[in-house]
Amino acid sequence: MLVGVLNGPNLNLLGRREPEIYGTATLADIERAVRAEGERLGMEIDWIQSNHEGALIEAVHRLEGKAAGALVNAAAWTHTSLALRDALLAVRVPFVEVHLSNVFAREPERRHSLLADLAIGVVAGFGMQSYTLGLQALAQRIRG
Amino acid sequence: MLVGVLNGPNLNLLGRREPEIYGTATLADIERAVRAEGERLGMEIDWIQSNHEGALIEAVHRLEGKAAGALVNAAAWTHTSLALRDALLAVRVPFVEVHLSNVFAREPERRHSLLADLAIGVVAGFGMQSYTLGLQALAQRIRG
Amino acid sequence: MLVGVLNGPNLNLLGRREPEIYGTATLADIERAVRAEGERLGMEIDWIQSNHEGALIEAVHRLEGKAAGALVNAAAWTHTSLALRDALLAVRVPFVEVHLSNVFAREPERRHSLLADLAIGVVAGFGMQSYTLGLQALAQRIRG
Amino acid sequence: MLVGVLNGPNLNLLGRREPEIYGTATLADIERAVRAEGERLGMEIDWIQSNHEGALIEAVHRLEGKAAGALVNAAAWTHTSLALRDALLAVRVPFVEVHLSNVFAREPERRHSLLADLAIGVVAGFGMQSYTLGLQALAQRIRG
Amino acid sequence: MLVGVLNGPNLNLLGRREPEIYGTATLADIERAVRAEGERLGMEIDWIQSNHEGALIEAVHRLEGKAAGALVNAAAWTHTSLALRDALLAVRVPFVEVHLSNVFAREPERRHSLLADLAIGVVAGFGMQSYTLGLQALAQRIRG
Amino acid sequence: MLVGVLNGPNLNLLGRREPEIYGTATLADIERAVRAEGERLGMEIDWIQSNHEGALIEAVHRLEGKAAGALVNAAAWTHTSLALRDALLAVRVPFVEVHLSNVFAREPERRHSLLADLAIGVVAGFGMQSYTLGLQALAQRIRG
Amino acid sequence: MLVGVLNGPNLNLLGRREPEIYGTATLADIERAVRAEGERLGMEIDWIQSNHEGALIEAVHRLEGKAAGALVNAAAWTHTSLALRDALLAVRVPFVEVHLSNVFAREPERRHSLLADLAIGVVAGFGMQSYTLGLQALAQRIRG
Amino acid sequence: MLVGVLNGPNLNLLGRREPEIYGTATLADIERAVRAEGERLGMEIDWIQSNHEGALIEAVHRLEGKAAGALVNAAAWTHTSLALRDALLAVRVPFVEVHLSNVFAREPERRHSLLADLAIGVVAGFGMQSYTLGLQALAQRIRG
Amino acid sequence: MLVGVLNGPNLNLLGRREPEIYGTATLADIERAVRAEGERLGMEIDWIQSNHEGALIEAVHRLEGKAAGALVNAAAWTHTSLALRDALLAVRVPFVEVHLSNVFAREPERRHSLLADLAIGVVAGFGMQSYTLGLQALAQRIRG
Amino acid sequence: MLVGVLNGPNLNLLGRREPEIYGTATLADIERAVRAEGERLGMEIDWIQSNHEGALIEAVHRLEGKAAGALVNAAAWTHTSLALRDALLAVRVPFVEVHLSNVFAREPERRHSLLADLAIGVVAGFGMQSYTLGLQALAQRIRG
Amino acid sequence: MLVGVLNGPNLNLLGRREPEIYGTATLADIERAVRAEGERLGMEIDWIQSNHEGALIEAVHRLEGKAAGALVNAAAWTHTSLALRDALLAVRVPFVEVHLSNVFAREPERRHSLLADLAIGVVAGFGMQSYTLGLQALAQRIRG
Amino acid sequence: MLVGVLNGPNLNLLGRREPEIYGTATLADIERAVRAEGERLGMEIDWIQSNHEGALIEAVHRLEGKAAGALVNAAAWTHTSLALRDALLAVRVPFVEVHLSNVFAREPERRHSLLADLAIGVVAGFGMQSYTLGLQALAQRIRG
Repeated sequence: MLVGVLNGPNLNLLGRREPEIYGTATLADIERAVRAEGERLGMEIDWIQSNHEGALIEAVHRLEGKAAGALVNAAAWTHTSLALRDALLAVRVPFVEVHLSNVFAREPERRHSLLADLAIGVVAGFGMQSYTLGLQALAQRIRG
Repeated sequence: MLVGVLNGPNLNLLGRREPEIYGTATLADIERAVRAEGERLGMEIDWIQSNHEGALIEAVHRLEGKAAGALVNAAAWTHTSLALRDALLAVRVPFVEVHLSNVFAREPERRHSLLADLAIGVVAGFGMQSYTLGLQALAQRIRG
Repeated sequence: MLVGVLNGPNLNLLGRREPEIYGTATLADIERAVRAEGERLGMEIDWIQSNHEGALIEAVHRLEGKAAGALVNAAAWTHTSLALRDALLAVRVPFVEVHLSNVFAREPERRHSLLADLAIGVVAGFGMQSYTLGLQALAQRIRG
Repeated sequence: MLVGVLNGPNLNLLGRREPEIYGTATLADIERAVRAEGERLGMEIDWIQSNHEGALIEAVHRLEGKAAGALVNAAAWTHTSLALRDALLAVRVPFVEVHLSNVFAREPERRHSLLADLAIGVVAGFGMQSYTLGLQALAQRIRG
Repeated sequence: MLVGVLNGPNLNLLGRREPEIYGTATLADIERAVRAEGERLGMEIDWIQSNHEGALIEAVHRLEGKAAGALVNAAAWTHTSLALRDALLAVRVPFVEVHLSNVFAREPERRHSLLADLAIGVVAGFGMQSYTLGLQALAQRIRG
Repeated sequence: MLVGVLNGPNLNLLGRREPEIYGTATLADIERAVRAEGERLGMEIDWIQSNHEGALIEAVHRLEGKAAGALVNAAAWTHTSLALRDALLAVRVPFVEVHLSNVFAREPERRHSLLADLAIGVVAGFGMQSYTLGLQALAQRIRG
Repeated sequence: MLVGVLNGPNLNLLGRREPEIYGTATLADIERAVRAEGERLGMEIDWIQSNHEGALIEAVHRLEGKAAGALVNAAAWTHTSLALRDALLAVRVPFVEVHLSNVFAREPERRHSLLADLAIGVVAGFGMQSYTLGLQALAQRIRG
Repeated sequence: MLVGVLNGPNLNLLGRREPEIYGTATLADIERAVRAEGERLGMEIDWIQSNHEGALIEAVHRLEGKAAGALVNAAAWTHTSLALRDALLAVRVPFVEVHLSNVFAREPERRHSLLADLAIGVVAGFGMQSYTLGLQALAQRIRG
Repeated sequence: MLVGVLNGPNLNLLGRREPEIYGTATLADIERAVRAEGERLGMEIDWIQSNHEGALIEAVHRLEGKAAGALVNAAAWTHTSLALRDALLAVRVPFVEVHLSNVFAREPERRHSLLADLAIGVVAGFGMQSYTLGLQALAQRIRG
Repeated sequence: MLVGVLNGPNLNLLGRREPEIYGTATLADIERAVRAEGERLGMEIDWIQSNHEGALIEAVHRLEGKAAGALVNAAAWTHTSLALRDALLAVRVPFVEVHLSNVFAREPERRHSLLADLAIGVVAGFGMQSYTLGLQALAQRIRG
Repeated sequence: MLVGVLNGPNLNLLGRREPEIYGTATLADIERAVRAEGERLGMEIDWIQSNHEGALIEAVHRLEGKAAGALVNAAAWTHTSLALRDALLAVRVPFVEVHLSNVFAREPERRHSLLADLAIGVVAGFGMQSYTLGLQALAQRIRG
Repeated sequence: MLVGVLNGPNLNLLGRREPEIYGTATLADIERAVRAEGERLGMEIDWIQSNHEGALIEAVHRLEGKAAGALVNAAAWTHTSLALRDALLAVRVPFVEVHLSNVFAREPERRHSLLADLAIGVVAGFGMQSYTLGLQALAQRIRG
């Protein structure tokens, strides 16, 4: 069972980027935790981070017919990329939207997601744990 | 470690109420699952459901100095009760907001929460599992 | 054939409350007229008035599987209670929304109903007669 | 006692026009029902339907000093014709606004009426019965 | 020098229509005053009133190449008829917008004119005198 | 195969009306071009232009059961006539919306169409050619 | 001379609740100060606090014909309870709206009051003293 | 019969200021024309221009009990000065609002007047003639 | 202890200005009452009224380092003068905002204050008593 | 005569992507049809599709001085890319905007185009035929 | 070459006024720096600061025909004074808008300037240096 | 001292692109002027232009720990790229926002910057000189 994990712009800076909001774990730390949880749940993880919208869109395209589901943390594009929304609409892989921070406690423009209504559900605010909880939710939805 | 689980109006109808949105599990089913997960995590569960806003507000008041945290599914009051928000502001117990359905895929008036910015984070869209994932997140936050 | 008649906050003051808007009939006068009309139409009337939102929500819950329909005059909650809307959504009893005054000729906040789109239809502006006309409409819908 | 019944644009298509919304009764069926109810209530009916705004405006003008009241189903003009509103303001004949469908459950632009605040009241959602109930309300208002 | 004077819907009721707003002069009184003032200014008056938007649009069309200017009191269509605006845009006869009442002291929907930015200017609030002052302004513009 | 071609208010002035926006072709020129293209496509053309909304509404009514499709250039009514929208909803003949000018490059109130979502599609900005291209699109939709 | 003093939701937590906003005085401290001031002004105080909207509405009802005036600190319901507004409209007892904090320096949703336009006036921002000043204002209005 | 003529900021620059909008007449030219027209109508003119809001407010104050009416061209303050509005509300002298340019054909912020609803009426767009027509209207209102 | 009392535009007309809103007391009456209350509280009063925004701004500047606090009734400027707000921000003298009328029961543009969030608190609706209550509140804040 | 045909994000998925909206033709099918139509019209086609905004922007840049015109189907970027708009503004090649689906019948955020006002015109709703009709329109504009 | 430097309300308090936003330099310090820079650039400086809008408007008037350009720091009036905008429109002297603080990082009402679209350009956020950079920009525009 | 100079989409077309807005200098001309000014100020310039958002984001990332500051002209992305904003938030290098044109005199969507509140300040409207003035401002901020 393959699961895509898609990470949007600036997430490569995690650990250094506004640690009071995003915590001190690096993206590599998160990747390790997600791979470990994936292994526990019998999932193979296809991990990608990109600062290029086109690259993330094409990563969504590649999931089709291959992946059982996805975790999506599209960072800033969550709020602005209609093109990424269209990619997820086109491919229709079941996915969970995750956020490290509690986006609902932040600036107004971060409270509206262009993707969330397409998702199974949303997990936000628990740092690295948002990813592992999201993976559990995805596993249960795919399996049951 | 005591954890309050607060359920808002109409949740007593679960299983019968719009099952295409809320699923067929009853509130008693969810309570059993939460108590089981709580036991696994070393938490004692203080469970309440009410259709009376005043009763839920006073349930929040009673958590003070007693509970280590809370799960809050305020249902319709999530979107309308400034008084419930004030109760959570006053008592300042750490809590996770949970929803059975993916509120972000529903009517506009259900997309804005008066509580979420006070929460640690939000878990929405996974039915009964929203509660058990929320409990895990709460456990990690309280413990570490 | 049982029909619930639900009356919201402050309606117990009818006759004294802003008579230039609501008329001089008391709620007891209206109840008598509704019971008479119900008898004429072969309906048993289950009458409730409450100033407690939770009590009205639970009155809706009790209609389920018991009542053939309802008249709903939710007064101020017509415009503010998403929880009452959820109760009517959950129970799905056919109902007619009634108002004593012509709400469309009043303040803007009284022109939007959170319930009306769930109703069979609306009768507003005819004082006590709004109830008896609404009962006729309900009878025809239930019977045919 | 003369009562004008004014029907706006496209109502001549009733029965064929979106029957899932407007039902299968034709305008002639409704006219017959209204005339029968009028007879029962001692009212003479002056029936008009027009797809020309100017014709309906002038029909309102002709009511002055002649009709005791009116039923108005202005269809689309309910929401757009300030000129029809001005005609009803000028002539000041007491009227009831009626709609076949529950306009409150439809598109937003059909939820606001330019006429309703001038009316005695509104009856909407009961198909042909909206007219006969409206006639009863009008009779009671005119008589006392 | 021919001048068109265009009067919109319901103005045929003047004198009876809301006299506290529009005064007690009838449209015939105004026509007489306008014709007298026109004579004084060396203008021939082409007078029209219609409750049919199409008739007024075509009256605008007929002004082309024939009239030196126009007075326009479009009544309710001032605020709603983009088609009348297009007629005035197409024909490009210089015109003055006039109103009997002070539209700026009335309901918000009467404060915005779809025609005024095309006009030479606006005279509003002086009853019958709005027409005669507007005619003077038009004369000066045409002559100088 | 009969096709209705409906032209709204002020289009009879084409050639003279704001030629920098609408070009110098007259409506008769366009009619000739449409009839020629119709002949080429095996379509009989039923041509109407009116400055009376009611006349255009009734022209739509007459298409029912008779015409295979329609071209609609409703001019100003595109943006204001809910009654015309209702006529097209009622009759449900497949139609293409056409505009001579590029309405998207004009004033904001000309950018929203009350009809376009009911149409097969829209062709705008190509002068007389908007009609002939629209006719080709209609032919293909009707035939295939 | 009886004066009702109505306190809304969460005010029972005063002293503990966000003391940087509401101060450290408890509700009992305020009650003592109000009773003392009342005694000085020759007023008998009828004190109520409730977290149940229905209870506060019925407390307003009980003032009718009994109380000479009221102080109202409706807390969160100030901004959301149309039902409480209706109760004050119905009973029409003269009242002063009071707030401990300067609501105008807080979040936007706390700047609009559904009650203030019904009040004699408003006193906000002076902690416990808001109540005693409000009582003085009420005394003067009742007496003179 | 004394009439105040009040001119707001920057009007002292007339003739030089944006002549394509305001024309080439100077304020002295307009004053002469107004005094001549005043003489013809038996009015004494009290003329003021100021770039100081306070000075214009106090000029309004001085009209009280002395002037039979006023012409007001408040220029930019028409759209921004609530204090000037309050002065006109307080003194309640009948006045006509005049504008040199057609404010309805200009930027949106110049289309809303804070004064116009207090005026007898408005004359706009006729350059210097706006003043003399306004004076005629004022004369008729004062006399009849 | 010196206290500045600042009065904005048109307050010099009190007693004559809309007495149904502002009462019949003159500004001199209010000044006497304030000076008497000041004496009782051991405060020296520095009283100013101006119709010139610049004069009131400079009166605020002069309070710096000299006054212990201020009462501010900025009248119309309450709602429009960002410059007065900046003066109060710059000087940072503690002040109470007072209004004679209940601004919350008036037109929408009088419900928003540009100053209130900088104030200790607000007293509105009690006529002349608004000033004396405001002075008491100020005294307590300065002293304790 | 070279014509650029620019296709935006996710169009490479055509045929699979939401076929109920976009049809079953693949992008290769459309390219073939466009090349055939181009040949018929004497146009050479420069075809590009990209999921990278920068690539599409630079494709626009390359058209300058080389292409006689362009067809632009910018997909999601139609509604969000001000940078693509700037590229088309800078290069000023005449272009036609095309859409496979009737964007006016879809979600609100797809109804506003950031490009359409720069285009000659728009063709939307006819699937693959939108491209060939657009090419005809472009040919006529370039040639005449 | 004469250059006017116009300073709006409260700038006379610089150094004391919110130094965390505006810095500790006084207006006299800035004047010295501007005069020095002016000397370096061969410009004579005409310096004014006023808390009276009328005085600043008249300072703009005096620039006409005398000054080659201006620096304008209108402080709060930047955001509220349409009259000052009109003065700059009337006189049409080329000017640069300057701000000490970065107005784009402040409250929303300080982000919109009524003057900036009339300026050559804007320099904001660099304290006293905003003035000297603005002067350089002005020098280059005037000279070249 | 290294300073990054970041140029957004379409700036490579400068000189050809809308010269009436952006002037005739090419980007190479600007680069030369910036390098010369940098040399004068003892700054090494790291120059980048990209039409790919991801490339610009990563250019921001590379500044971290290496550059003392930056000039940012993000062109269209100024108004749309939340991802670029996040990059600047993450890296927190001090920067000045510059624009060639006076963005405040252009279309509304170009008046709001997603970056400006993070900047030291803004320089806009002076063509190439905006860059050199911005560099001076940056130098002073870095040095003092």
